[in-house]
Amino acid sequence: MKSMRYLGMRHHSHQYWLNIMNQSAYKELANDNYNQGPLVAALENRVAHLLDKPKAMLFNKGTTCQLAALKTICQASKNNRVILHAKSHIAFDEQDAYQALMGLEGVILGTEAAPFTARDLKSIKHKAAVLTVELPLRRVGFKLTAWEELLKMRQWCDEHQVHFHMDGARLWESTHFYQRSLAEIAALFDSAYVSLYKGIGGISGALLVGSETFIAQCSVWRDRLGSNMYSTFPALITGLEGIDKNLPKIPSWVDRAQEINTLLNSIEAIKVNQADTNGFQLHVKGNKTQLNQQLNQLQQQYNLVLCKPFENMDNQDLLYTEIQVGAEHEKISNEEILAFFNQLFS
Amino acid sequence: MKSMRYLGMRHHSHQYWLNIMNQSAYKELANDNYNQGPLVAALENRVAHLLDKPKAMLFNKGTTCQLAALKTICQASKNNRVILHAKSHIAFDEQDAYQALMGLEGVILGTEAAPFTARDLKSIKHKAAVLTVELPLRRVGFKLTAWEELLKMRQWCDEHQVHFHMDGARLWESTHFYQRSLAEIAALFDSAYVSLYKGIGGISGALLVGSETFIAQCSVWRDRLGSNMYSTFPALITGLEGIDKNLPKIPSWVDRAQEINTLLNSIEAIKVNQADTNGFQLHVKGNKTQLNQQLNQLQQQYNLVLCKPFENMDNQDLLYTEIQVGAEHEKISNEEILAFFNQLFS
Repeated sequence: MKSMRYLGMRHHSHQYWLNIMNQSAYKELANDNYNQGPLVAALENRVAHLLDKPKAMLFNKGTTCQLAALKTICQASKNNRVILHAKSHIAFDEQDAYQALMGLEGVILGTEAAPFTARDLKSIKHKAAVLTVELPLRRVGFKLTAWEELLKMRQWCDEHQVHFHMDGARLWESTHFYQRSLAEIAALFDSAYVSLYKGIGGISGALLVGSETFIAQCSVWRDRLGSNMYSTFPALITGLEGIDKNLPKIPSWVDRAQEINTLLNSIEAIKVNQADTNGFQLHVKGNKTQLNQQLNQLQQQYNLVLCKPFENMDNQDLLYTEIQVGAEHEKISNEEILAFFNQLFS
Repeated sequence: MKSMRYLGMRHHSHQYWLNIMNQSAYKELANDNYNQGPLVAALENRVAHLLDKPKAMLFNKGTTCQLAALKTICQASKNNRVILHAKSHIAFDEQDAYQALMGLEGVILGTEAAPFTARDLKSIKHKAAVLTVELPLRRVGFKLTAWEELLKMRQWCDEHQVHFHMDGARLWESTHFYQRSLAEIAALFDSAYVSLYKGIGGISGALLVGSETFIAQCSVWRDRLGSNMYSTFPALITGLEGIDKNLPKIPSWVDRAQEINTLLNSIEAIKVNQADTNGFQLHVKGNKTQLNQQLNQLQQQYNLVLCKPFENMDNQDLLYTEIQVGAEHEKISNEEILAFFNQLFS
């Protein structure tokens, strides 16, 4: 049986991960223990340097990373209001932890079609502590906020003394769109979160960057949220390996996503949103169960996973799926992709 | 250079952990993903079976495990009061997360010398939602609550409709003292947390056991606390291996701890508290800096780590350290241990 090929992120076998660690020079560094040790320092220094921020701090996960950051900002400014996009990970994908667990209050902006703009900030009636922008905004099709808008938001934050925080879970995938370095993008923000899995391809983990003072203040919330493991070396070693091996390749994944995006634009039955990063949404009319059955059959026939199962769009008579390009995309030709989708939507 | 030998828990090299995983049959099971998959199921079923509870649920860590449990209990009973020992992990070692993060209120009992008793419950003025007992209570010298006391507490909980929760971070080390199985001990409690590192010797991780309904209710708080990793297979594989390989040996570690305890009782200058489990405290008068310098020199001389650095006892003119027995204790003879401490305290 031929093995399945994946255009985007995939589940790897345990042996795949073990091989990375077995062969890694980083395994020779001493143990981490409760967020201390040379492996943690190596990763934190690496990310602080990449984003050109004074300090980076390890977290077990993006959720705890951003909850700690938001709570710290709100405590310092004695103001519990956080500005979020309605479809942001924090507002949409974390079981309302920012409210139910952290006691914060959301000031919700934006639609399911696009990131909010600087103009949308004018509708805010009560001063907030922090403005959060997710780059790219995954749930609206991995869309990036225009650079000019980010500049205006930075200015708005300065004028209103609001902390500007970036949810950069996919920041690594965003430099190509802006044609700017990670550091140039991060320079607009007071703090940012970045992820070690997804594009980087580590097992898990997250980092928060910001000023020395801010990061030090977040530490107590990191502990309270249980983000201090006895050891988390597999995340650390695979994270460092991913920064070495995958990070330099990510811009080429964005190129490929745009190529595929253009290709799919030629299919009458579907719509694709512009690929700002290595991912985009595909929209189509149809019967969900039936379409996903056909998708599954084609995956077996082609030994090929190009997208997730289709889901219903909110409030619309449409289905959508996400297409993402990852480390193994070169195993798949444009011809195959076009043939696959032409057959699916014929 | 001879390699250091450790009486208790030690930091292992990354290669040590990788070897366990490389050689484990569990690595052939399919990936875990956000707390789902056959590896997670294997571990949850194994622990539910060992403790004879309807359901077990994986957590990344004891802290998040117990915070989710306490919050769920308190929400269900519309009562935020949790009864805790003053020196329990929850009250003493988690940066007050149960209050600051979860919004719960502590009803604090007990002294630094001993676990509280059923009689102490009579001082409680306002009805609480949950009574938590840490078995053994690490910060008072790994002391266990007497079986008769546990029976009385169970009765008190029944009479007052209070949930009885066990912090069983070291429950694996407690069966020898009670001469009862894990299941017999767990049967007294409505819920319990157990740990995968420490005695079991996994990399990290925790499990919560209880009724199906209770565990299902805890799930949303598990997510909010970020205890849903993209993958955590190293904790799962090493946890399962530890249950196979280390759990059956733990009673022999308790035997050895009691042997060493008796041995040290012969040294005039020190006091040791009774070894209920595989650990106990050693108390001594002296100058902390000086004593820890001598300890460090002896460790190098003997290639031997028998205890942690000495710390000051609260409110007393005494120093203390913890002595614990773990998987590698057989590399060390009683004669060496006695010689080491006789030299340290001469």
